[in-house]
Amino acid sequence: MFFASDNAGPAHPQVMRHVTAANEGYALPYGNDPIMDGVRETIRHIFEAPEAAVHLAATGTAANALALACYCQPFETVFCSPVAHIHEDECNAPEFYTAGAKLTLVPGGDRMLPEDLRRSITAEESRGVHGPQRGPVSITQVTERGGVYSLQELQALTGVAREHGLPVHLDGARFANALVALGCSAAEMTWKSGVDVVSFGGTKNGCLGVEAVVLFDPAKAWEFELRRKRGAHLFSKHRYLSAQMAGYLEDGLWLETAALANEHCRRLATGLRERGAQFLHEPEANMIFAAFPRRVHQALHDAGAMYYIWEGTLEGDDPDEMLAARLVCDWSVSSDQIDTFLSHLDM
Amino acid sequence: MFFASDNAGPAHPQVMRHVTAANEGYALPYGNDPIMDGVRETIRHIFEAPEAAVHLAATGTAANALALACYCQPFETVFCSPVAHIHEDECNAPEFYTAGAKLTLVPGGDRMLPEDLRRSITAEESRGVHGPQRGPVSITQVTERGGVYSLQELQALTGVAREHGLPVHLDGARFANALVALGCSAAEMTWKSGVDVVSFGGTKNGCLGVEAVVLFDPAKAWEFELRRKRGAHLFSKHRYLSAQMAGYLEDGLWLETAALANEHCRRLATGLRERGAQFLHEPEANMIFAAFPRRVHQALHDAGAMYYIWEGTLEGDDPDEMLAARLVCDWSVSSDQIDTFLSHLDM
Amino acid sequence: MFFASDNAGPAHPQVMRHVTAANEGYALPYGNDPIMDGVRETIRHIFEAPEAAVHLAATGTAANALALACYCQPFETVFCSPVAHIHEDECNAPEFYTAGAKLTLVPGGDRMLPEDLRRSITAEESRGVHGPQRGPVSITQVTERGGVYSLQELQALTGVAREHGLPVHLDGARFANALVALGCSAAEMTWKSGVDVVSFGGTKNGCLGVEAVVLFDPAKAWEFELRRKRGAHLFSKHRYLSAQMAGYLEDGLWLETAALANEHCRRLATGLRERGAQFLHEPEANMIFAAFPRRVHQALHDAGAMYYIWEGTLEGDDPDEMLAARLVCDWSVSSDQIDTFLSHLDM
Amino acid sequence: MFFASDNAGPAHPQVMRHVTAANEGYALPYGNDPIMDGVRETIRHIFEAPEAAVHLAATGTAANALALACYCQPFETVFCSPVAHIHEDECNAPEFYTAGAKLTLVPGGDRMLPEDLRRSITAEESRGVHGPQRGPVSITQVTERGGVYSLQELQALTGVAREHGLPVHLDGARFANALVALGCSAAEMTWKSGVDVVSFGGTKNGCLGVEAVVLFDPAKAWEFELRRKRGAHLFSKHRYLSAQMAGYLEDGLWLETAALANEHCRRLATGLRERGAQFLHEPEANMIFAAFPRRVHQALHDAGAMYYIWEGTLEGDDPDEMLAARLVCDWSVSSDQIDTFLSHLDM
Repeated sequence: MFFASDNAGPAHPQVMRHVTAANEGYALPYGNDPIMDGVRETIRHIFEAPEAAVHLAATGTAANALALACYCQPFETVFCSPVAHIHEDECNAPEFYTAGAKLTLVPGGDRMLPEDLRRSITAEESRGVHGPQRGPVSITQVTERGGVYSLQELQALTGVAREHGLPVHLDGARFANALVALGCSAAEMTWKSGVDVVSFGGTKNGCLGVEAVVLFDPAKAWEFELRRKRGAHLFSKHRYLSAQMAGYLEDGLWLETAALANEHCRRLATGLRERGAQFLHEPEANMIFAAFPRRVHQALHDAGAMYYIWEGTLEGDDPDEMLAARLVCDWSVSSDQIDTFLSHLDM
Repeated sequence: MFFASDNAGPAHPQVMRHVTAANEGYALPYGNDPIMDGVRETIRHIFEAPEAAVHLAATGTAANALALACYCQPFETVFCSPVAHIHEDECNAPEFYTAGAKLTLVPGGDRMLPEDLRRSITAEESRGVHGPQRGPVSITQVTERGGVYSLQELQALTGVAREHGLPVHLDGARFANALVALGCSAAEMTWKSGVDVVSFGGTKNGCLGVEAVVLFDPAKAWEFELRRKRGAHLFSKHRYLSAQMAGYLEDGLWLETAALANEHCRRLATGLRERGAQFLHEPEANMIFAAFPRRVHQALHDAGAMYYIWEGTLEGDDPDEMLAARLVCDWSVSSDQIDTFLSHLDM
Repeated sequence: MFFASDNAGPAHPQVMRHVTAANEGYALPYGNDPIMDGVRETIRHIFEAPEAAVHLAATGTAANALALACYCQPFETVFCSPVAHIHEDECNAPEFYTAGAKLTLVPGGDRMLPEDLRRSITAEESRGVHGPQRGPVSITQVTERGGVYSLQELQALTGVAREHGLPVHLDGARFANALVALGCSAAEMTWKSGVDVVSFGGTKNGCLGVEAVVLFDPAKAWEFELRRKRGAHLFSKHRYLSAQMAGYLEDGLWLETAALANEHCRRLATGLRERGAQFLHEPEANMIFAAFPRRVHQALHDAGAMYYIWEGTLEGDDPDEMLAARLVCDWSVSSDQIDTFLSHLDM
Repeated sequence: MFFASDNAGPAHPQVMRHVTAANEGYALPYGNDPIMDGVRETIRHIFEAPEAAVHLAATGTAANALALACYCQPFETVFCSPVAHIHEDECNAPEFYTAGAKLTLVPGGDRMLPEDLRRSITAEESRGVHGPQRGPVSITQVTERGGVYSLQELQALTGVAREHGLPVHLDGARFANALVALGCSAAEMTWKSGVDVVSFGGTKNGCLGVEAVVLFDPAKAWEFELRRKRGAHLFSKHRYLSAQMAGYLEDGLWLETAALANEHCRRLATGLRERGAQFLHEPEANMIFAAFPRRVHQALHDAGAMYYIWEGTLEGDDPDEMLAARLVCDWSVSSDQIDTFLSHLDM
């Protein structure tokens, strides 16, 4: 019963098969391997963007920081949610890669609202040379609290960015989970909705460690490559990144694993709801934030369930106090595990 | 006949087996996987350094840049060979990770000589606050031209660093090849010879993409971890790095593959020498820099041999002009390939 | 009637005299001029800190950014008010000088409260290697909205920093104004209250452009010098910085000009209050934030008064709408100007 | 007898008068003062560049670092002389301001030769994404050893830069001295000869501390301003920088002081030559590098002469050993001082 994160499960066998298969003979290093040629074309096809620059990196933080660095000057600021991964969980990597740009936290919580974003952008306008200049807007889809922006919501946000001539980055560490939730195309969720650059996650959804960065402006391709190399993120034996991504994309595996994860999450959420758990956020992809009594947490804990207590602590006197859990499903969790988990939820 | 680089061959089956085996169930992310516990202990054992901080990174450039950043202030300069990888082949990654430190190129070629190093260090002494301050000395072992410093030579260099209180970094992208060539222990080639921090290469010697950074001062451990995370080099599914390293170290595989590579190189060098090739550098590990006539290069090229023409160009009128080749052997090259290669060397 | 800022008035004649007097013959460059020796001793005396490192810079932003850089690693975050100059008005200079540290904005407004600070510090504690590490606390005294922390308030803030082992920076661009307002000693307002490093302002209080940075830990002296040089803030003809500071400190001029500015401010505030202006913040030094009707602003504007409309715009239909003004007094404003200003305040 | 540097003499009275005169009443801060308007126009006029962006900074290092940062990406390298001020005397400021670009030292000494520059540029071409990319060429005029490039020589260097599409920076800390030596126009020595951006020195030639940066591409103006602010080099009381520059330029003072300095230097060089000193470099502006016996140095030293011993040390047994001196004349040195100096040169 492992619901701590979608970065702790195994890679999908199909991905692993591609990695193993790639391990034959010699291959040109540094992204010049033929597998990468295929990956590039597949991703361009998926995104309906035949000119897009497509590059791989091994971590989501690298994908985000490099993508932002291509769109942000050091004297600018990035607009993002106060709980964005780039702000909370990357130990200043965006600041590092942008040579010291700032992150402006748009007030209001996990989900950015257009009016809040507009207010934040407008607020940075008055200080001329003294304040940071306005840089990219970074949107996280799936959000950090498990929400999914509708296309309309996305477009409203990117519309605000456009009003001010600002580029838009999409942190898609859980891109596939969002896509499946929306049932739209990758193009619709990105450039057709005003996104300039995407971190297209693989790691959390069945890979060992690979993300693609898709830049819809091909003029950024070379700068990205140089920044990636300078950031020490260019793999010599790049084929093992390429192979992961090739396996991930083959026959729509990426959508399949995301659909599985989302479905697991729905099953878990339904069970929780039926048993009276209180939801902090509406689970729209593969993450749940829900509260239930301490004694239930304790029982789950004793039964070996692993997940983060999001609010409160397991230790405490009141067995009925409500503590919030974060529960994340990846593709590999089984229905059995979910059912066992739920069986402990006798509130 | 692939002699272009040791970063283009496959990973060793034993390494791949460990990666595949690691792909079971859940594992704590971010370096907290149990495989990493074993790797840490094994490396400490190998280095006879029970307190050493041991961390993994996926690229050699990351290992070098992070190691240097822990030992270099932004107002300092790193002393290295003019052909050091950190200077020539990392697209300013050391400058990036150190926040703008300088690299001082010690005159004299691939192999640093103690007197040249001392002169370079001394030359930086007179400018007070105006010049960069003196920072770490970075030594490459195996050198970029295939040489191996003897322990005595190493100690002479680290001794010069010590005279000025400067820390020493060892770029060991080909650490195992050097160790095998010297027939000494890892401790002897590092801390017992005055080295403070090592980039311990795995990628070129049978892994997919993993290097260890070994810091003999455990007080640097946490700073390294923070710099790694900030550099976006902390893997969430870290087990796949751990597993590579575990497979690489198991039963001395790392020494075995290095011995193979060095042995292949010796065979190739002997054949070249017998056929009249002229050596630019004495091959002491797994790299050869040797010149032979253009027509031989052309014949090899036609036969599908892959390697870098180091000096000169394949195109040219004079069939007898001597062009230098760089030939690198990894563990996976076969004796047959070498013999086939040599069979074209009818000068 | 110039109340726009205290950075727009002239330098005090005594300061200018010292600059002129310094312009004789040769002087050792780069801070080795004898005037600097005197300045250093005077400042150490004023701060009752015989060992303190004392350095000059020409701008307040330089003083702040350099001071912070000596106390903040790139993977850390600085705690400050959301309206701190270092956040709002330095175009990412702190991020630049710290190589990409973050600024954590302590919620709650201009004046930091200990409980808010503690909450912010505590909130950064849980993310281990993923979040930024906790770095210095930066306190602005006089605050950006014209408030002055009492010694007790200061100590409460520095106490919170100490609880977590964090160093404390005091942005004293208006140090003298605060000191005069509190009627305490420089030592009491700094190291005796738990401050580690001070930006001691001169520019806004009668100088042309000079600030001192006082580091109570002399071990930081050399690092500061190197960072200053690397930041291009070491003056070759340093004597002109020294001379300003010497003139500023001579016979307590700095306290005199600050007392004048504060006194002017009080007179202006009293007049505003009598005429019904509404105060956004209590003016405790030399700055006023007060609201009065649009028509009064328009009359003042027509009469040539210069100041910032802080909230609202001069243009608008409703003559009675309350618009807030920011009014800053420097030492050079005359009582006549204040009285003329007030004479237009016929509400 | 002060010949240590041209940064140790006083400011010219005319410059000081302007500073004093500027100290009246209020002035808009941050470069919006009316004096700056005049300075901008004067400099555009001098450079025959009516569109040029003109900004001031207080130090030569700031001028250089900011100018380079506007023309250099962090993954690029700057080509310069191995003795360039930006390499030897700025404590990594260019690396800092460019976010970690490299400096490639063109072999060959103080004076860059076109063929050496071309070779250096070409050498950086082969490594693709692995090496730094080629960035600006920085030329120092007057050179660090007192030489002056002829227009033809300058054009040969900028021509090499143009062949590779690289921008050209001119470090003109002694711009006026070079201009006077060449007897050409500022336009001829800069944009008409292929220079993109100039550090136009004032400090060494009669100011307190001010340099102009002239960017011939006005599109760079705003970026420069932002980088200057972020570097903490935007003065609030900017009028004192403006006033210095206004005084410096008024009635051609800048050319007059430079002519004086060069003339003093010529007188000193002639005397030295007559007395048998050996010249390390031909003095073409206001700096001399010449060797004469230790006993003469000792006599000069005893008589209070101040200058740097460039090679060797004053202490030593052999009174006839030749030691090299660096002798710099600024505008303020008197003919008497020179004659007194020469009177000790009884070799």
